[in-house]
Amino acid sequence: MKKRHLLAPGPTPVFPDALLAMARPILYHRGPEYEVLLGRVREGLRYLFQTKNEVLLFTSSGTGGMEGAVINTLSPGDRALVIRSGKFGERWGEICEAYGLQPQYIDVEWGRAVEPDTVAAALAADPAIKAVFATHTESSTGVLHDIEAIARIVGKTPAILVVDAIMSLGVADLPMDAWGVDIVVGGSQKGLMIPPGLAFCAVSEKAWAMVRQSRLPKFYFNFQAERKSLEKNQNTFTPAVSLVMALHESLAAIRTEGLTALFARHDRLARATRAGVRALGLELFADPPTPALTAVAAPQGIEAGAIVKTLRNVHGITISGGQAQLKGKIFRLAHLGYADESDVVLCLAALERTLSDLGYPVKLGEGVRAAQEVLAQAG
Amino acid sequence: MKKRHLLAPGPTPVFPDALLAMARPILYHRGPEYEVLLGRVREGLRYLFQTKNEVLLFTSSGTGGMEGAVINTLSPGDRALVIRSGKFGERWGEICEAYGLQPQYIDVEWGRAVEPDTVAAALAADPAIKAVFATHTESSTGVLHDIEAIARIVGKTPAILVVDAIMSLGVADLPMDAWGVDIVVGGSQKGLMIPPGLAFCAVSEKAWAMVRQSRLPKFYFNFQAERKSLEKNQNTFTPAVSLVMALHESLAAIRTEGLTALFARHDRLARATRAGVRALGLELFADPPTPALTAVAAPQGIEAGAIVKTLRNVHGITISGGQAQLKGKIFRLAHLGYADESDVVLCLAALERTLSDLGYPVKLGEGVRAAQEVLAQAG
Repeated sequence: MKKRHLLAPGPTPVFPDALLAMARPILYHRGPEYEVLLGRVREGLRYLFQTKNEVLLFTSSGTGGMEGAVINTLSPGDRALVIRSGKFGERWGEICEAYGLQPQYIDVEWGRAVEPDTVAAALAADPAIKAVFATHTESSTGVLHDIEAIARIVGKTPAILVVDAIMSLGVADLPMDAWGVDIVVGGSQKGLMIPPGLAFCAVSEKAWAMVRQSRLPKFYFNFQAERKSLEKNQNTFTPAVSLVMALHESLAAIRTEGLTALFARHDRLARATRAGVRALGLELFADPPTPALTAVAAPQGIEAGAIVKTLRNVHGITISGGQAQLKGKIFRLAHLGYADESDVVLCLAALERTLSDLGYPVKLGEGVRAAQEVLAQAG
Repeated sequence: MKKRHLLAPGPTPVFPDALLAMARPILYHRGPEYEVLLGRVREGLRYLFQTKNEVLLFTSSGTGGMEGAVINTLSPGDRALVIRSGKFGERWGEICEAYGLQPQYIDVEWGRAVEPDTVAAALAADPAIKAVFATHTESSTGVLHDIEAIARIVGKTPAILVVDAIMSLGVADLPMDAWGVDIVVGGSQKGLMIPPGLAFCAVSEKAWAMVRQSRLPKFYFNFQAERKSLEKNQNTFTPAVSLVMALHESLAAIRTEGLTALFARHDRLARATRAGVRALGLELFADPPTPALTAVAAPQGIEAGAIVKTLRNVHGITISGGQAQLKGKIFRLAHLGYADESDVVLCLAALERTLSDLGYPVKLGEGVRAAQEVLAQAG
C-alpha cells in the first residue's frame, strides 16, 4: 500500500467537509435552498477578497475569469499594459491578442518580480493605457509580485489594475479595497480547497465604469448580467451547483480560521519548506517567493523531470515540474489550501530520499531538520 | 421528516456512483491517472454522441458550449439561420447578436416544433447562410424537434447544422454521424446524471473546415486548442476534475445500460407521465413532446406557480414552472437521467394531491392508474 499525496500547485487536496458536501443530493439552482446558500457564499467571498464589491462567480477554470476581465473592460483599439514574468503573465497577453488588442508588454526575467517603477514609467509614457494586467503569484516561477506598490502607481492614473490572484487567493494577503486593486481574479482549486470549476472576479467601482463602456463581444462571461443575477442570489446560467455547495463549506472554514491565521499558516509552511530545501544545498528559483509554492532549481546534472517522476512513482507524492522554458530546470512544491506542517515534513523527507536515489549527495534528515526548526518557532 | 425529490429539468439527481466518485481524493489533471481517465471519457462520449468525431469538453454550463459553437465556426458578417421556438432557441440568437452577427430567424409558436420545410425554404432563399442553429429538446416548452429531417435538408447545402442537445442528450436518440449533424452541444446535468459544470461539443469534419476559417474572437472556448489537447488526453485549461471523475462513472453506467435501453426507458417514463397527466383532465402543452420532460398547461383558474410551490412545500417535490412568456401558464415534470418508474408514480401521486388541495376536481389515484397501465406494458 502506498498513500498518495497531492502537493502540486493545483488542484490542491479537497477539504473533507467539501468532499462530503459534493456527495450530498444536489440542489436545484432555481430553488429557495440554493438562493440561501448563494447568499452566504457571496458574503464569504467578500470576506475572502477583503472587499465591499460584489464578487462575480463563473463556472469555468480561472482562465475564463481572466478572459472575462479583459472582454468586460476594454473596447477595440484600447491600449493595455501586460506584465509578463511567466506563463500566466503571458496568458493575459494571449487573451488580449485573441481579441485584437495590441498590448504593451513589460517583460520580466522568469523567477523575478516586476520593478514597480517600470510600471510607473510605462504608464507615464503612454497615458492612453486603460488597463494594467498583473499577476499576484506567478505559478510558473513561484514569484510573488508587489501588488500593493503597483496598485499605488496605477491608482494615480485613469487606468484600472487587474490582478490574476488565482494561485494565491486566500494564501497571500491581497486586501483589494485597501490597496485599490480594481479587478481580482480567483479560482476554486487553490487556497479555497475545493475542486477546479469556479472562477471569481471581484470588480471595483472604477472598473464597473469601464465595464459599462466596454465594447468587446461577450456572452457567457458577461459581468453586468452576472452581477444583476447575483443581486437576486441567482446565476445567469446553470452554475456548477456541487462546487458551490463545496465552496460554501470552504468559505465557512476560512472564516473560522480567519484571514490573519490563514496567511500566517501559509507563510510558515513556505518558510519551513524553503529552509528545508536550502539545507539540502538546493537553490530557490523565485525571488521574492510566494507563500503558495516553492520553486526549486534542479541541481546540476539532475533533470527536474526525474525528481518529479521519482517522487510520484516511488514515494506517492505528486508535485509539478517546470513549464515552457523552465521544463526540466525547476520543480515546484506546493503548500497551500488544505495543507499543514505534516505535508511539509513528508514532502521534504521524500525529496531527500529522491535526491539520494538520483545520486545527489544528501544527508538524510537535514531538510526535515531545518524545516522543523522553523516550524518549532512560535507563530 | 420529508423526503426531497428533484424532478426539475436540470440539474437532475446525481447518480450515486458519481456522487461517490466526487467524494474521492481529487486527481492531478497533469498526471498519468487523469490521462487514463480522460482517455476513457473520450471513448464514452463518442459512444453517447454516436460519433467517430472528437467530443470536445469545456468546464462551463451548456451555454458556454453553445457560445463555442457560434464563435468557432463563424466570422464577422456571416449569415446564419436561427430556429426560435422557446427560450433556448432564443439563446442561439442572443449569442450571435452579442458577436455582431445578424441572423435570420424562423419563429415557431412556443409549444410547437419547426416545420422542416420552412428551414428548406429559408436556406433556398439565402444560399449564403453558413450555419443553422437548432434545438433538439426545447426545455422551455418541452418540444422535441425533428432533427433528422432538418439534417437531411441542411446536409444538401454548404451550411452546417448546429444542435443544442443539452436537454435530451442520452434521453432522445440523436445519432450524430448517421443523421449528419455537424455540431452537437451537450451538458453534464441532464441525461448524464452528474452535476452541472461540463459542456460538450461534438464536431463533424464539415464543421472543422469552418472552424479553421472562423475569425470571430475566442480564447477560453477555443475548439482547435481543445482538440489538440484532448488528442494527448489533456485539457487546455484546468478542467473541473471532480466532474470528469463523476462523468467517467456515468458514462460507464450508460454503456452498461446501452443506448437502446436508455432511450426506451425514457420514452416509457414519458408516455406514462403523459398518460397520467391526461387522465387527470390536464392538457399537454408540447406537440410533439420530448421524452425528457412533460410540459403541462395549468388548468383554468390555477396559477402554475401555485402548483410548483405546493408540490415543493407540501410534498417535497421540486419541479419547474414556465419561463418568460410561459410563466404562470405551464409547469414541467422531468423524467430523465437517474429516473425510473418510481419517480413517475410518486410525482403523479403528489400532483393529484396538489391539484386537489388547490381546488381542482381530481379523482385521487386516476393519474397513477393511467401511468401504471403504460408501465405495465412490455418494453
